[in-house]
Amino acid sequence: MITSNQNSKIKHVRALMGRSKERREAEAFVVEGVRLVEEAAKGDWRFEIVLYDETLSERGKLQVEGLRLKGVDVEEVSAGVMKSLSDTESPQGILAVVTNYQLPITNQLNFILIPDQIRDPGNLGTLLRSAAAAGAQAVLVPPETTDAFAPKVLRSGMGAHFRLPVHSMSWDEIEKTASGLNVYAADMDGQPCWETDLTKPIALIVGSEAEGVSESARKLAKGKISIPMSGETESLNAGVAGSVLMFEVMRQRSVNSE
Amino acid sequence: MITSNQNSKIKHVRALMGRSKERREAEAFVVEGVRLVEEAAKGDWRFEIVLYDETLSERGKLQVEGLRLKGVDVEEVSAGVMKSLSDTESPQGILAVVTNYQLPITNQLNFILIPDQIRDPGNLGTLLRSAAAAGAQAVLVPPETTDAFAPKVLRSGMGAHFRLPVHSMSWDEIEKTASGLNVYAADMDGQPCWETDLTKPIALIVGSEAEGVSESARKLAKGKISIPMSGETESLNAGVAGSVLMFEVMRQRSVNSE
Repeated sequence: MITSNQNSKIKHVRALMGRSKERREAEAFVVEGVRLVEEAAKGDWRFEIVLYDETLSERGKLQVEGLRLKGVDVEEVSAGVMKSLSDTESPQGILAVVTNYQLPITNQLNFILIPDQIRDPGNLGTLLRSAAAAGAQAVLVPPETTDAFAPKVLRSGMGAHFRLPVHSMSWDEIEKTASGLNVYAADMDGQPCWETDLTKPIALIVGSEAEGVSESARKLAKGKISIPMSGETESLNAGVAGSVLMFEVMRQRSVNSE
Repeated sequence: MITSNQNSKIKHVRALMGRSKERREAEAFVVEGVRLVEEAAKGDWRFEIVLYDETLSERGKLQVEGLRLKGVDVEEVSAGVMKSLSDTESPQGILAVVTNYQLPITNQLNFILIPDQIRDPGNLGTLLRSAAAAGAQAVLVPPETTDAFAPKVLRSGMGAHFRLPVHSMSWDEIEKTASGLNVYAADMDGQPCWETDLTKPIALIVGSEAEGVSESARKLAKGKISIPMSGETESLNAGVAGSVLMFEVMRQRSVNSE
């Protein structure tokens, strides 16, 4: 059992949780909690290390045993070490380092999301979760947006990371990937989303509440779409606005395919 | 200047922030931050006390002076006292006790929201904010849902509390208020929202992600509606799901009124 915070594995996990640079260099990230570990295991993602402590539930222990049998490096740690690593107030007693192999992006794209200048991890996680639920095929993450594989983003993404390609890209790469798509930016001054034909292949750019969309996004976008709102002072947070727009894409396509 | 946490006004504010029972008995709540105080002042809500400290911005100080001129009890407190009261990590240096007079509910109801068993203050705030933006006329809060006037709900509501009637009610009162409305509960097994006519007067019940809707809500509901999703394991959090549904109501009514 590992009881020291100075243990090299513990230091490695802590670095991966805390810094996006470490995650990029190691091409790995850390998932926390029974549900996310299950999602990763179900999707055949490669586990480097699994840490657990005595507080882990029976369901979690079964998971740990399964991974140990598959040859994954599984280590028990003290509850104190787990608590010091955990990103949550009530740790579930399990953390795993997973290799970020990036799910492939289809070359028949018709719906992608580009979260632009989203700094809040909870909002980014919400957007990823909704993207998976609304049938987006990929999420392209520009440099100005917070790292999609940070612990808080993974947590609020609720497993979307394991089912949806989420790729960090420069704006040049985004432009190449989105070529052939109708690029729309969410914007309060845009045309109402439900008066816009979203059944054609599209890339949807959603900016942050405070800053809107970036200059790079503005250049890429061919049009602007908005969510009409009641009342003059109303606005929505980026996670909610992006979700409403993505489900409007889904609605139009579902209604038109009948 | 108040420098002691034992001061009676400070104790009063702390009690109002911390406990829904105190808020109910005093019929008052506490708003924090320049923007929310501005929203309350703009809506002519009655201020009992305003506390500020030296870190307050110029914009905030103008606000404080305006309230002092109106006869509001304005007190400077030490930064330490403010920090001990504040519910946020980076306090803006202003807190105000506001009387909860409850905006009146129109008797020509055609769109209300009932957030059911929503325990997470952030989710409830998101629902209130989206309700205001999507044109809901009132929010009826049943006993099982967290108090809508807790600091975190106010913060994520972004001022919706001052523009939209938000009333705590028993299920009996809710039933009376919603009589004459078509009551729908959001439910994964419901009929797709975009195949449901939402242009008639409706009450929308949104339950929590973990628990769904309550027995009382189920009894009241005449039908169930869902957001169709892509992929088997997908789900949405209550704040996002409720927002998507409320904007679908708005869309149908907007499209049909053209």
